[in-house]
Amino acid sequence: MQNLPKEWNRIDKIKSLVQRHNPNTVVGLGDDGFVFRNFPGLSVIAQDMMIEEVHFSFDYTSASDLGHKILAVNLSDLAAMGATAHFAQVSLGLPAHLTQTWLDEFYQGMTQLGDQFQVEIVGGDLCLSPKATVVDVSVYGSCETPFTRGNVQPGQLLLASGPLGLSHAGLLALQNKIGDRYPESVLRHKRPTPRLDLVSSLHQQAHAVRALMDCSDGLINDVTILAHNRLGFQVWAEQALIHPEVATLAKELGTSPTDFLLWGGEDYQLLLVVDETDRDRFPEWNVLGQFTETPVIAVREDGKVRNLETFKGWKHFG
Amino acid sequence: MQNLPKEWNRIDKIKSLVQRHNPNTVVGLGDDGFVFRNFPGLSVIAQDMMIEEVHFSFDYTSASDLGHKILAVNLSDLAAMGATAHFAQVSLGLPAHLTQTWLDEFYQGMTQLGDQFQVEIVGGDLCLSPKATVVDVSVYGSCETPFTRGNVQPGQLLLASGPLGLSHAGLLALQNKIGDRYPESVLRHKRPTPRLDLVSSLHQQAHAVRALMDCSDGLINDVTILAHNRLGFQVWAEQALIHPEVATLAKELGTSPTDFLLWGGEDYQLLLVVDETDRDRFPEWNVLGQFTETPVIAVREDGKVRNLETFKGWKHFG
Repeated sequence: MQNLPKEWNRIDKIKSLVQRHNPNTVVGLGDDGFVFRNFPGLSVIAQDMMIEEVHFSFDYTSASDLGHKILAVNLSDLAAMGATAHFAQVSLGLPAHLTQTWLDEFYQGMTQLGDQFQVEIVGGDLCLSPKATVVDVSVYGSCETPFTRGNVQPGQLLLASGPLGLSHAGLLALQNKIGDRYPESVLRHKRPTPRLDLVSSLHQQAHAVRALMDCSDGLINDVTILAHNRLGFQVWAEQALIHPEVATLAKELGTSPTDFLLWGGEDYQLLLVVDETDRDRFPEWNVLGQFTETPVIAVREDGKVRNLETFKGWKHFG
Repeated sequence: MQNLPKEWNRIDKIKSLVQRHNPNTVVGLGDDGFVFRNFPGLSVIAQDMMIEEVHFSFDYTSASDLGHKILAVNLSDLAAMGATAHFAQVSLGLPAHLTQTWLDEFYQGMTQLGDQFQVEIVGGDLCLSPKATVVDVSVYGSCETPFTRGNVQPGQLLLASGPLGLSHAGLLALQNKIGDRYPESVLRHKRPTPRLDLVSSLHQQAHAVRALMDCSDGLINDVTILAHNRLGFQVWAEQALIHPEVATLAKELGTSPTDFLLWGGEDYQLLLVVDETDRDRFPEWNVLGQFTETPVIAVREDGKVRNLETFKGWKHFG
């Protein structure tokens, strides 16, 4: 028959790029649904979307970057639950002008990351989106005991698995076309690493993990969620790790490095809540501050404490 | 703090609308991921996206219709695998002007359908999409033994769980602003019913189910997938059930009712492949034709057989 949908060839090509044959697979990619044997323990699922000109710009995002990042932000959610990742489904809405080469690079970026953590792409959708590229990924993982955003108590400390603000510095450097001088920041912005590498060691210290979440929308945003209108939090800005590139960029742009720490999003580090007495169990982690009884978010810096009055984080619907 | 993200209130409101408390839930909606105890048998997942002006138009689609339909098309995939549905995750990209009322109606449409099949919405994403509304849903279900698109053989028959072409008739009626005279077609287009109701009886006859898929992109599209370049198919157009509204609309628009049968998509009926000798085990199902050894798609109508030369189905990337 003439004129068969081009979409079919594209889907066959994608299938050959992503298929990995997980031993638990029962019915693979290409049927109405994907079927697999359950893994030991509990199931964990998450789903996150990225939209052109809201979450990324093609001015500085390659197909491969996008494929990496949308999978990374989803795997980060699994890491934050203490899960092992297994499968991802990918829905992609594309303008008609995007080519097969673009698609190949997108899935190469995604599978390069997936292969690091034995995550296989097993389904999803491919459709036309004339006005903006849209990508939405759902992930499936498993765990024996999940870590949650929990029941945080006053006096407990908040630790981070790495420096915060670096991704936002990368974004600003790219937007100001000075990305070449901020390579680490740009890399963290374009290709964040989901901290699945920490899951196993966190489970070994599970008794000390009071709460865990990933830092996707900026420290204050995420701390406010953990405090849940019930508690406050004091950021210990002078103790928090500020990456040298963040310090340099803040100087260059005439802003405060602390603002990157407080409001910068998309670092995808893990935020861990522990009792003060357990802090030393996590020597690699950086302390960010302490939860307080009074429901106020404050910053201690240069020996002074100031309350934060206005929220400046992500506000897509602001 | 002033100026907290409006998105937070929206998410709280959505949570209160959709939460149902499945007994298998371990960590509910509102953490980094959703955690649940496995159901007996195998896991089944699927994911489908809909984009404004590609898959639907707000000229004739209400928020509630959209919420219903995007869940229905996903549940239809689970039905086609012979699965029982449990959970859905919903990513929604919305222009800034859409209101809380719109969101409420969207989730009401979705939960009304979900509640019919004990499906709970347990996660997803909500973000700004300035240029077009986008919705992507992933579903999770379970089954003991999946039905697949299988290894279809010449001589086997294709049956449908209901009339085909009705949804496409509804779409054309809406586009021509004569929807009020085609109520059944319009209803099937706007609010298709996933055939999860048939799953249990199909399992009772599992030995006779040679292949199963859902009919989402039109009969010829889906038959071509089942035949997989290896086999042909002869549509028995004179025997296929044509709904009276399709016959009337075809006359009104000066087209052939058979074209609705062959090319009309989005009916979300199930397509079942059986051996000829098993046809009588499925008396409620309508026979559509027979797979043939020669890899040609043909139509038998008014005593004549004609080969289909050109593909006219869904071609988003045509």
